[in-house]
Amino acid sequence: MLSAEAIAGLPEIGEGDDLAALIAERAELADGDVLVVAQKAVSKAEGRVVRLAEVQPSQRARELAGALDPRQLEVILRESVRLVRVRPPLVIAETRHGFVCASAGVDASNAPEPSSLVLLPEDPDASAARLRTRLRELTGAEVGVIVSDSFGRAWRQGTTDVAIGLAGIRPLLDLKGVRDPAGYELHATVIAVADELAGAAELVLGKTDGVPAAVISGVDARGEGRARDLLMPAERDLFR
Amino acid sequence: MLSAEAIAGLPEIGEGDDLAALIAERAELADGDVLVVAQKAVSKAEGRVVRLAEVQPSQRARELAGALDPRQLEVILRESVRLVRVRPPLVIAETRHGFVCASAGVDASNAPEPSSLVLLPEDPDASAARLRTRLRELTGAEVGVIVSDSFGRAWRQGTTDVAIGLAGIRPLLDLKGVRDPAGYELHATVIAVADELAGAAELVLGKTDGVPAAVISGVDARGEGRARDLLMPAERDLFR
Repeated sequence: MLSAEAIAGLPEIGEGDDLAALIAERAELADGDVLVVAQKAVSKAEGRVVRLAEVQPSQRARELAGALDPRQLEVILRESVRLVRVRPPLVIAETRHGFVCASAGVDASNAPEPSSLVLLPEDPDASAARLRTRLRELTGAEVGVIVSDSFGRAWRQGTTDVAIGLAGIRPLLDLKGVRDPAGYELHATVIAVADELAGAAELVLGKTDGVPAAVISGVDARGEGRARDLLMPAERDLFR
Repeated sequence: MLSAEAIAGLPEIGEGDDLAALIAERAELADGDVLVVAQKAVSKAEGRVVRLAEVQPSQRARELAGALDPRQLEVILRESVRLVRVRPPLVIAETRHGFVCASAGVDASNAPEPSSLVLLPEDPDASAARLRTRLRELTGAEVGVIVSDSFGRAWRQGTTDVAIGLAGIRPLLDLKGVRDPAGYELHATVIAVADELAGAAELVLGKTDGVPAAVISGVDARGEGRARDLLMPAERDLFR
């Protein structure tokens, strides 16, 4: 049986906070558990916040901004390596990490102050690995860690949470060569386990009550990998 | 706390089987629980199976098939209203229901016999509603029902399970007008709860052990809606 529980009582996270310690004080962690932490909490702890007042928009940002604040678009452009679709206020971009998502992951909601923006972590896998190491120090438990964010999808409405960083987790379950009960080889079946774990955690997190972390038990997702493993390689990407 | 548990001991499903009765005999269902049933079990119970030997491929199917069996491509074309991308053996198509997915949902794995294909239900919302009604008759419980399938995603590797049919479920949680703890309105946040529920169930189902159903407790997703609510309207779809 899978269980997922939000970690209650976490304070508002600020730059320099020891997020792992705040979590360890409030959660019972056991070997094999998966800790899912919302990207925004990780980014705030890492100081990945930009104050709009300090942003000077480029000419390109002014041209593309439409109804958006040109300073916000400027920050999105700085976080992007490629714009995939632009229909302001919607900007779908590929981030430096390779994620294709709205606003290159730049977000104003749940920012420390209304006039600031929260960016994705510089290296979300490294963020997850640091949390995992620190949690092992503090609790002795070998947990998997996922840094999650809410991404829109092509063709479907609404966001689902996905893994943008991970440590101690096997992101994909490859059933190639496995046979179904009728003996038919499941050669096309690779399951994005890390994304389903992030989505399951979202169901208990909620967006508005400020709870940025949950623990999932009962799923054996132990393994190695990087969030990059979840990205479609360009040569196989039919939707560039 | 969310919990998700696979329903153990279900037999191989065949045409005409009373799927709700088979489930009710093996699961403790309570008001507000969400039953997630894999599409393939629903389709098989509804007889949505095509034997390849009975398929005569069209000229177009022969032309597009590449390494695929032209009869398989013929069935995919019949299930499609639009081909989105074709790079055989990969065919991304929009189904008559409006789902954009690989092979228009036509699948050979877990088919009743190796030379047959399983199609999506004619009307997966109606399938879910029938299961919900029948389960109420049999158990007295008011459960939500999701018919799930494994869909690939643009830009990301691996499949996640999503809702292709539902009943008694609010598919989307719209936080428009809701404010985060800092008072910032979350105007862009609509969460695809039904898809996250389907994904959470997949984590306990597994693809190869023949368990096609799971029960999720502890998430209040009660409401009305249709799987169509999860589809991006054409005029807002940046990836047609």
